[in-house]
Amino acid sequence: MPVISKKGSNMPASPIRKLVPYAEAAKKRGTHVIHLNIGQPDIKTPAVALEAIKNNTIEVLAYSMTEGSETYRTKIAKYYERNDITVSHKDIIVTTGGSEALSFAMGTIMDPEDEIIIPEPFYANYNGFATASGVKVVPIVSKLENNFALPPISEFEKRITPKTKAILICNPGNPTGYLYTREEIQQLAELAKKHNLFLVADEVYREFTYDGTEHYSILQIPDFEEHAIVVDSVSKRYSMCGARIGCLVSKNSDVIEAALKFAQARLSPPTFAQIASEAALDTPQAYFDDVIDEYVERRNTLVAELQKIDGVKVALPKGAFYCVAELPISDADDFAQWLLESFEVDGNTVMVAPAAGFYATEGLGKNQIRIAYVLEKEQLLKAVSILNEGLKVYSSQ
Amino acid sequence: MPVISKKGSNMPASPIRKLVPYAEAAKKRGTHVIHLNIGQPDIKTPAVALEAIKNNTIEVLAYSMTEGSETYRTKIAKYYERNDITVSHKDIIVTTGGSEALSFAMGTIMDPEDEIIIPEPFYANYNGFATASGVKVVPIVSKLENNFALPPISEFEKRITPKTKAILICNPGNPTGYLYTREEIQQLAELAKKHNLFLVADEVYREFTYDGTEHYSILQIPDFEEHAIVVDSVSKRYSMCGARIGCLVSKNSDVIEAALKFAQARLSPPTFAQIASEAALDTPQAYFDDVIDEYVERRNTLVAELQKIDGVKVALPKGAFYCVAELPISDADDFAQWLLESFEVDGNTVMVAPAAGFYATEGLGKNQIRIAYVLEKEQLLKAVSILNEGLKVYSSQ
Repeated sequence: MPVISKKGSNMPASPIRKLVPYAEAAKKRGTHVIHLNIGQPDIKTPAVALEAIKNNTIEVLAYSMTEGSETYRTKIAKYYERNDITVSHKDIIVTTGGSEALSFAMGTIMDPEDEIIIPEPFYANYNGFATASGVKVVPIVSKLENNFALPPISEFEKRITPKTKAILICNPGNPTGYLYTREEIQQLAELAKKHNLFLVADEVYREFTYDGTEHYSILQIPDFEEHAIVVDSVSKRYSMCGARIGCLVSKNSDVIEAALKFAQARLSPPTFAQIASEAALDTPQAYFDDVIDEYVERRNTLVAELQKIDGVKVALPKGAFYCVAELPISDADDFAQWLLESFEVDGNTVMVAPAAGFYATEGLGKNQIRIAYVLEKEQLLKAVSILNEGLKVYSSQ
Repeated sequence: MPVISKKGSNMPASPIRKLVPYAEAAKKRGTHVIHLNIGQPDIKTPAVALEAIKNNTIEVLAYSMTEGSETYRTKIAKYYERNDITVSHKDIIVTTGGSEALSFAMGTIMDPEDEIIIPEPFYANYNGFATASGVKVVPIVSKLENNFALPPISEFEKRITPKTKAILICNPGNPTGYLYTREEIQQLAELAKKHNLFLVADEVYREFTYDGTEHYSILQIPDFEEHAIVVDSVSKRYSMCGARIGCLVSKNSDVIEAALKFAQARLSPPTFAQIASEAALDTPQAYFDDVIDEYVERRNTLVAELQKIDGVKVALPKGAFYCVAELPISDADDFAQWLLESFEVDGNTVMVAPAAGFYATEGLGKNQIRIAYVLEKEQLLKAVSILNEGLKVYSSQ
């Protein structure tokens, strides 16, 4: 019998994959599961995007351009302009989700055994893309105590080797909700220049910044064009996770040229989703204002309620729609499973994402969970109350 | 300045990429370019698929299941049943095009430096996926003289090393149009069993078989479940190239389990396109009958006209919608560029795909081109006539 590859064996499973059967079993028992575990917003997709799909006049659903249609890329460039980012449509490759943009970026700038430094906790799928590309993730721990701010540059310096090709950040962060300051971004840029590294930024949550903070993109850094690669996506911006449209943006033409060859191999991004994504760029500002108001209220509710629970510590998110909370337990994997398997309040339970899967360093995050506040306030209140009750019962066992 | 990876430098460009600027320049001059170079059918997408998109009631365009929705996979399994292939929905992972299915397959069964044997000429993007995966393609030449039939098994045996993990075929073949016989498939299966290899078959052209021939899938081979991996796609079947929906099929549960982890990293296949693809499975048989009739007429026209040209040899395709023709010239790249740059008949010229890009062995296929017969008969007649005139003028220079 032929055997699968080492790579295939080593591919990490999603942090919540082990929990899925328990969630399904709970649902089968009739328990309602409140999902705090996934960044799937309940926010409605802009009508303008959905209408564009319904009004399409396609007769032959043909390949689009490999790099995305020129009209769409031109509109994306204008979107960036509105965000004080100056790029041309030629600096943009439309991808199948931000996921593919990151895959292309890794393939374009890194060979097997090369190293990429990532502050942890980080979006768990970075591990998957790194494994698929044969690339080594070098983590630097950031701390809940200071809201997961950028670790000191000296910690980065310590980890740079001849194999280091890039630093990867997610800004604002999934799972941390941390928004890097302009100063932090500039420090990273100086480091990247000093060591001739690429700086890759996953900026898919760009719009989701709170409390009067402002997002500073790596594409705004002066004299940094050759180093900066942005991974972007429509998934969260327009609540269009199922579209699977993102883009890779860089003013380094070698990067774009090589990434385009990866893109050519897979022919083109999905056509229907590009139509929706292009139309979504006409979403009125009022939509975002409402969405941001909604997320701020949810965040405030969630954080305030979590802070009321004995022994729970929570980082204050300034962006995105996640927060990492430390619980007064030793094994969040076990607790998360127990919630699904053995606990309910009035027929409800919650599913959370154990945070260990967001760390590359073995043993870190074992007492932390990630909560996505993508549900309505009432649901969040109920969920935190269940969590609170659950912690009491679990700890007294 | 940071530099791109070796992998990025080595990624092959598409065989026609160099020609694209010349085609664009020709169009700017006002010359009409007849495209024989790309497998983008002009056939209408089934109405049932397009209607499903227009009638969708999505309000939140959410992630779908990583492996594709259960309803869709169940319907795919029934489609296979109609094709005398017995699989369950659990043996299927829905992918973003056949492209992604092949990427997942390569990652799942091969590590960097491993070898995959592929009869050449083959679909050029196999080179791209192999480079992206760090895998080595070991080609075996098949010959135009015998319509690109399977090379002798002894040739495969010669190339098997401890690094060999798989054999990859495309059946019916792009670019060859060759349909492997049941006997050829069985020979490959025996070989794979003897050497403990995977057999990966790209069967995206399954329906496109002519002259009373029948497609024999590697999933139909008895006692071969652990070895067989099928790459499939809706792109050609329903003229839905822009959907970007395909699937990976295997009854080897280790393969499915590992491939699913690659799939999890990229979250899910596109939602709209899955809706269209699921609906497309209800396409009435009459649609396919018409399409096959159309392709047979086109093939007959194309082959008959090509055979009339002095010095042109052409393989008779039994499937798919491509044929490889040998021209009485020494450099098809140069000829193809010349057609776009310097030749026209009544304001028309043709774009063909030079075949060298479909070979892994340097120097092969230099006097061959691939023609996709995805255009109406009248267009094909005009195109071959231009090719004929072009050859005369080009050769007399």
